[in-house]
Amino acid sequence: MSSAIPEGFKNEAFILYDKMEARLSPHPNPPEPGPNEVLIRSLSVGICGSDLHYMHDMALGNIKVTSPIVLGHEASGQVVAVGSKVSKFKPGDRVCYEPSITCRRCEYCLRQEYNLCIVAVTTCPPYNGSLTHYYNHHEDFVYKIPDNVSAEEGALIEPLTIAVYAAKRGDLTVGDRMLILGSGPIGLLMVMMGKVYGCTRTVITDIREDRLAIAKELGADETILVDRSWSEDETIAEIRKRFDGDLPNKCYECSGIEKNFRLSFRATKANGTCILVGMGPTEILLPIADAANREVIIKSVHRSKGCFPLSIELAAQKKVNLTKLVTHRFTLKEAAKAFETGFKGEGCKVMIKVGEDTMNTADTE
Amino acid sequence: MSSAIPEGFKNEAFILYDKMEARLSPHPNPPEPGPNEVLIRSLSVGICGSDLHYMHDMALGNIKVTSPIVLGHEASGQVVAVGSKVSKFKPGDRVCYEPSITCRRCEYCLRQEYNLCIVAVTTCPPYNGSLTHYYNHHEDFVYKIPDNVSAEEGALIEPLTIAVYAAKRGDLTVGDRMLILGSGPIGLLMVMMGKVYGCTRTVITDIREDRLAIAKELGADETILVDRSWSEDETIAEIRKRFDGDLPNKCYECSGIEKNFRLSFRATKANGTCILVGMGPTEILLPIADAANREVIIKSVHRSKGCFPLSIELAAQKKVNLTKLVTHRFTLKEAAKAFETGFKGEGCKVMIKVGEDTMNTADTE
Amino acid sequence: MSSAIPEGFKNEAFILYDKMEARLSPHPNPPEPGPNEVLIRSLSVGICGSDLHYMHDMALGNIKVTSPIVLGHEASGQVVAVGSKVSKFKPGDRVCYEPSITCRRCEYCLRQEYNLCIVAVTTCPPYNGSLTHYYNHHEDFVYKIPDNVSAEEGALIEPLTIAVYAAKRGDLTVGDRMLILGSGPIGLLMVMMGKVYGCTRTVITDIREDRLAIAKELGADETILVDRSWSEDETIAEIRKRFDGDLPNKCYECSGIEKNFRLSFRATKANGTCILVGMGPTEILLPIADAANREVIIKSVHRSKGCFPLSIELAAQKKVNLTKLVTHRFTLKEAAKAFETGFKGEGCKVMIKVGEDTMNTADTE
Amino acid sequence: MSSAIPEGFKNEAFILYDKMEARLSPHPNPPEPGPNEVLIRSLSVGICGSDLHYMHDMALGNIKVTSPIVLGHEASGQVVAVGSKVSKFKPGDRVCYEPSITCRRCEYCLRQEYNLCIVAVTTCPPYNGSLTHYYNHHEDFVYKIPDNVSAEEGALIEPLTIAVYAAKRGDLTVGDRMLILGSGPIGLLMVMMGKVYGCTRTVITDIREDRLAIAKELGADETILVDRSWSEDETIAEIRKRFDGDLPNKCYECSGIEKNFRLSFRATKANGTCILVGMGPTEILLPIADAANREVIIKSVHRSKGCFPLSIELAAQKKVNLTKLVTHRFTLKEAAKAFETGFKGEGCKVMIKVGEDTMNTADTE
Repeated sequence: MSSAIPEGFKNEAFILYDKMEARLSPHPNPPEPGPNEVLIRSLSVGICGSDLHYMHDMALGNIKVTSPIVLGHEASGQVVAVGSKVSKFKPGDRVCYEPSITCRRCEYCLRQEYNLCIVAVTTCPPYNGSLTHYYNHHEDFVYKIPDNVSAEEGALIEPLTIAVYAAKRGDLTVGDRMLILGSGPIGLLMVMMGKVYGCTRTVITDIREDRLAIAKELGADETILVDRSWSEDETIAEIRKRFDGDLPNKCYECSGIEKNFRLSFRATKANGTCILVGMGPTEILLPIADAANREVIIKSVHRSKGCFPLSIELAAQKKVNLTKLVTHRFTLKEAAKAFETGFKGEGCKVMIKVGEDTMNTADTE
Repeated sequence: MSSAIPEGFKNEAFILYDKMEARLSPHPNPPEPGPNEVLIRSLSVGICGSDLHYMHDMALGNIKVTSPIVLGHEASGQVVAVGSKVSKFKPGDRVCYEPSITCRRCEYCLRQEYNLCIVAVTTCPPYNGSLTHYYNHHEDFVYKIPDNVSAEEGALIEPLTIAVYAAKRGDLTVGDRMLILGSGPIGLLMVMMGKVYGCTRTVITDIREDRLAIAKELGADETILVDRSWSEDETIAEIRKRFDGDLPNKCYECSGIEKNFRLSFRATKANGTCILVGMGPTEILLPIADAANREVIIKSVHRSKGCFPLSIELAAQKKVNLTKLVTHRFTLKEAAKAFETGFKGEGCKVMIKVGEDTMNTADTE
Repeated sequence: MSSAIPEGFKNEAFILYDKMEARLSPHPNPPEPGPNEVLIRSLSVGICGSDLHYMHDMALGNIKVTSPIVLGHEASGQVVAVGSKVSKFKPGDRVCYEPSITCRRCEYCLRQEYNLCIVAVTTCPPYNGSLTHYYNHHEDFVYKIPDNVSAEEGALIEPLTIAVYAAKRGDLTVGDRMLILGSGPIGLLMVMMGKVYGCTRTVITDIREDRLAIAKELGADETILVDRSWSEDETIAEIRKRFDGDLPNKCYECSGIEKNFRLSFRATKANGTCILVGMGPTEILLPIADAANREVIIKSVHRSKGCFPLSIELAAQKKVNLTKLVTHRFTLKEAAKAFETGFKGEGCKVMIKVGEDTMNTADTE
Repeated sequence: MSSAIPEGFKNEAFILYDKMEARLSPHPNPPEPGPNEVLIRSLSVGICGSDLHYMHDMALGNIKVTSPIVLGHEASGQVVAVGSKVSKFKPGDRVCYEPSITCRRCEYCLRQEYNLCIVAVTTCPPYNGSLTHYYNHHEDFVYKIPDNVSAEEGALIEPLTIAVYAAKRGDLTVGDRMLILGSGPIGLLMVMMGKVYGCTRTVITDIREDRLAIAKELGADETILVDRSWSEDETIAEIRKRFDGDLPNKCYECSGIEKNFRLSFRATKANGTCILVGMGPTEILLPIADAANREVIIKSVHRSKGCFPLSIELAAQKKVNLTKLVTHRFTLKEAAKAFETGFKGEGCKVMIKVGEDTMNTADTE
């Protein structure tokens, strides 16, 4: 156990044991950080859709949970000790971290496509996450957050990097007209991207009015409350209405829903780009000819790469309003309840406060 | 009738009247060319898959043939007269032409994406094609061919532009490893592109040995004779064998077959590009998650844009061997037989000689 | 004379006759608009640096004024009549226009690089400009401005397109750190681009405090009041101070001053882009090795291409504050005085009101 | 000393002590390779222009030689021992290596722009080079060469990477028309790139007929034997003659000569790219307005990044003819004479054979 942890400290973690069986349990304190590691005291951790998937299915896509793991990877914390070779950090620094620890040697890493690194170690199964009081992480994947970024905002940097990466991947730029399908946390972050990247029209869809209301507050120009009874053609007609009869040149699928995958292929303007951000079913019957005849470019987003520094800068400059996403707050003791809330699908982002942020306590007030 | 046409010349055209009813028929001589038009005497015309579709279905995708039309649009010819404002051409010039006449004013045309121009007039229905002795075309879409390019090669410039455009659209470059699905004329042209663009590995598939043999002669590094009984996984295993266990970073779907569309999504390397060139079914059940998780970029090709000058240069510099594609030759009188051959699917490209090339008669000998 | 002009209307124009000899003079009313032309009643016209150059030298670079010309090309107006083939406009439409009328047929035009068209006809010498009550212009280069864009803002769309094009040419994007050398109208427009394109740091230099004050109001994060006595190294040290010891990854030269050209090569970060917007001396002693060793990319901006629609949209959405640039206002009668003011170099943009904007009179109040 | 080196082996190295004072001297055998290091037995080493600069000036640009160093960094060798963590290599592997060992952590390394890494350790001063029998190198910068690539070709991979990188940096592609200024080894390698990347016209200049003769053999379409008495305008006229009156859209400066830097700015077509590969004087009086008005893009090349795998593949596939560059051959014993030849500027590439290639002895026969 690291000497930086108060003697006798009884660490706990929210551990997933089996389908829908996760509970706060005693957990060993981490060892001294390795030469390039940083020992972090956990501050805030957001619940990600993937956490819910792991809990529900003990799996997500081809990732299987085969032994108990600590959940959580959208996290902020405070450095309490650093390894012998670490010079970038010192105890007291407030930080967030990139969950994937990549190999830096495979061809993908060498081309700065490390999100595709096939030997990456991540805080996804079988690696432990951050819903615990103390953990070590490799310094190269840890990033300082400035004083004016709260612990909650820090925990939201990781999902923000997905949106920033999606914006970059879709070459989002000034004058773009963007359609966002689905107004979960990522969809709402894309609304913020619409402002940041200078879209001249941002339209977002959902079947829930409360989320569209948040989208409006965040700056969406128009929202479409989708009626489940609409045909595909009717939905497209509704979309066209919001773009002066035309289609958006950028379409972001952020729901993971089959219906929206189909829609995204048809609702993107000719030679526009359709960006798949949501994780959907393995196979989908897709209107490929319509997209192909109009030269729609289809791209996708798998994790993110190189987006932490910019995401932190956007948060620090208050160009994004991350706190707006947090609709429910719990402590680590209440983690089980937090996950219940997540499963109910109420509100937007569920945040768990693990430790006290001695720097900035504005968050939960 | 243009005074450049010998007095009393009885023009004929191969006209499509109804499903599978096309025949050589008397056809009016064209009028004097308009101010910006060029009157062309037809030399060679290749049969395109779309010609067969029109003949078989009186339709292709959403294009319907509603009145009799002259077939053919892969064509070379010789200028016999020019309009009052034409300065780029003079009688005697040997030429090929771009079938689409675009508006030059819509947003696509203004962005040099004129292949997506929605008001384009083309030598597709309802406009007449080039299987006739004389026709007018707008000078801006006509291109000179040099003396060392034969009339047959000239007629193959149009399909070559599709391959050149597909190469550009897929950012084909030195060091790429390319998989081509389907070895029809476009697939074989892509093999040539593999040589021209410096691919370090070009592999092509088909179920026909004769076409793969042509592919080999054109420089394919490896061919895969697909067995219809193979599962998707087995086919992918065969592909991996040809790429040292890896997948190609560029995959060109050139068959229009559902099976190959599916395959192209899975057989493209992570962050590689899958380019859809073939025209396939309207909707396909696609393994989208596999492609999306690996950030495969999906692009497509609709006609071509801006590729005639380079295609002609490649033909003139003998960097492509277009004549190799021609396996059957007929005269205009034999056009019906030529189409029969096309429908049988024998060989590769069926070429129809309409007029005598006084410059270059090497073709048919 | 067009019948849309009130009978007996005595047109006038501000005409340049010889070096420093320009005066308001009687000028013929324009003829009926040609089939694709639009007859425009002039509203506001801004004075551009090039107008001053023509007046001072009867030349600008290799453009020579060899016969009397009407000055002015940053203009807004109102359509009063349209040619027989014009369908996009109708009398009453408020418009601005692109000064260059390009050939649409040269290789540059065909590649949508029409700003490099070598046969372009422009409202620069020997073609007449817009400091006159009525003039015709080709419809394809005329753009509607919406009601909420004033006549003055309309006249500033043309310079705005230069800034928008410079932003595009420099791939300006979220997270960029931009240095702007020179705070004339274009430099100040680049400050606005910094906001629009999401730069996280925008720094601008000048020797004039009044202009830097405007820059601050427009959102510049930092300004550098350059002392003429500073050495190049000292200036670079000042720049580094504003970028946390680093250099900006985007540097825009907007002054046309030799000193700043030199500086731009050294003050751009490694692998960053230096964009030359100002027109400077023919030859300059440049620190090329420093830029080359650090792989600085050097680009430049000649006029603009394809930027009117987006510029108008930015003005309509109030993402840019064009009116802020106007520091002096005159009527056409006072044009000589307006040019005097321009030569004095006081303030920023000098605007000349030629006609009454019946739609929107907020400008000059 | 590594146990893989024959006991009692007396190592030697060609060491630079002072200006023009370099000689073969006893040199310690290297220690056992570190965990990630590879011990290499030197095979062939080419003399680079930078080696001559170091010898002549004890400096190159801002790199100073302040203590004796082993010269040479264009090298091939054979692995004789590997560090404890090395799995990619085994004794017997024939290899070449990337001279720069970069930090992998600075912002440039993290963006895969490691050629700009400011903390890179290289086999340039003060680090020892490869003109010695044995040396260690970090495995991540060592690359296997296949059996059909000779030791000499292996030594030429490093300069080849500069040309490949220059081709990539200049987006060289099919249809480009390329002008190469200077026919030293890099200029000649660019001729090979012209073939590999599909340029439809490659023209090269020099004042030496013997080098232009090699260029012709390597596939240059045209050569220009420059007369020192020509004015800039005359040289440009000569260039235009070789491009049908036009200018090349890609211009590579490969001579480092002031005259050619100037020329490259003027001789590149509008919106074309001028790529500076040669290292020239610190400051040059440049015709910047001419380049800027025509939107010529100016890029440069500093070392290379990520180009070893492709360069080796091109050599293995015999798409480049590296051996053609070698005009003089010496042994390590004759190193002094080899450098004398280099200084005389005779021929093209001077190659020094350090050790016997037991695999492939075809080179020198």
